[in-house]
Amino acid sequence: MRVRKKKHGAERMEACAQLWVREPEAARGKWRGLFGSDNPIHIEIGCGKGDFVTGMAALHPDINFVAVEMIADVIVTAMEKAKDMGLKNVLFANFNAERLTDVFEKGEAERIYLNFSDPWKKNRQAKRRLTHKNFLDRYKRVLNTGDFIWFKTDNKELFEFSLNSFAAEGFKMRNITFDLHNSGFEGNVMTEYEKKFAGLGQPIYRLEAEYVQ
Amino acid sequence: MRVRKKKHGAERMEACAQLWVREPEAARGKWRGLFGSDNPIHIEIGCGKGDFVTGMAALHPDINFVAVEMIADVIVTAMEKAKDMGLKNVLFANFNAERLTDVFEKGEAERIYLNFSDPWKKNRQAKRRLTHKNFLDRYKRVLNTGDFIWFKTDNKELFEFSLNSFAAEGFKMRNITFDLHNSGFEGNVMTEYEKKFAGLGQPIYRLEAEYVQ
Repeated sequence: MRVRKKKHGAERMEACAQLWVREPEAARGKWRGLFGSDNPIHIEIGCGKGDFVTGMAALHPDINFVAVEMIADVIVTAMEKAKDMGLKNVLFANFNAERLTDVFEKGEAERIYLNFSDPWKKNRQAKRRLTHKNFLDRYKRVLNTGDFIWFKTDNKELFEFSLNSFAAEGFKMRNITFDLHNSGFEGNVMTEYEKKFAGLGQPIYRLEAEYVQ
Repeated sequence: MRVRKKKHGAERMEACAQLWVREPEAARGKWRGLFGSDNPIHIEIGCGKGDFVTGMAALHPDINFVAVEMIADVIVTAMEKAKDMGLKNVLFANFNAERLTDVFEKGEAERIYLNFSDPWKKNRQAKRRLTHKNFLDRYKRVLNTGDFIWFKTDNKELFEFSLNSFAAEGFKMRNITFDLHNSGFEGNVMTEYEKKFAGLGQPIYRLEAEYVQ
């Protein structure tokens, strides 16, 4: 996503200080303490402007959410949303997912959400896709066996790539759908993008991948 | 497929007697003997008019093919095609795939092809789909671990159903594509249907599913 540099970004970040984990590496192994609860932790990688993670946090007060986003000017909007909603079960961290295992230790989270990740359309960019083997290996180092990755996208080519990647890396998939909004799946929380695409009648692809190795 | 009852069906079947296995149950455990060779055996379930299996047999003289089709008036056309081509490595059997394990013993075949199988669109017909759990269980009783099912279809809903079914039954998928003819896959042999659909620019879905349990 191309983002125009926003004014007053630093000040706006500061205003959300209670939701913002400034040094995510320092939180490794301590996330439960940061939330002040032993509830399960779910991570969204690439939270964008936060419609999904704030919606999920409001719906699931018994889950603690960590919203990861590498673009500061985007995450600030998400944080302001969470602050306005008075959510206590979501924290935000501004880092590149390549650092995921520096931020979470094994078993510290039990679900990962990937929503409308950048498809990185060119073959030479495949390694940047959040469902590339290199990322799936990182997720395995954060999740335990039996945990799930929930993935949805409007991009057919990324979905095709991801099916192959999850299968090759030994994940067990379920609830694979080529049309989420007509699939009967309940409790779907839409992202900003999803609202836009669904409004255009474009199908949304979705799957759940269980880490079984 | 709706098929008009053809005249002289029985006579035409008789004319292909050397390619026709009249009592497939009696062949169980004896297929290598019928072919007179120890080459690997591949089965196509639902061979239709035989373009795929005859094309494959011509391309792969070191593989023995068994073409299964439950509609007699269709299989006769396939047999005539194989006879005209002088193929020695394909045999035809006219039976319902529900009887598969009565016709092949464990390990007797090492690959199964499912091409443009009937999608049986209504939910209550799901059990008739050739990728339903009940059929996958039969394939496991014919294949060995490490063997593959190759599946292709133009039907998006059947493909979606099949991805879930293969995953749920523990098959490991690979080479999943939503557009076979633009996927770079080499050596594809087209069925009658495929030639028609591909000509209309309609994408063909394909996957390979390895029996790993």
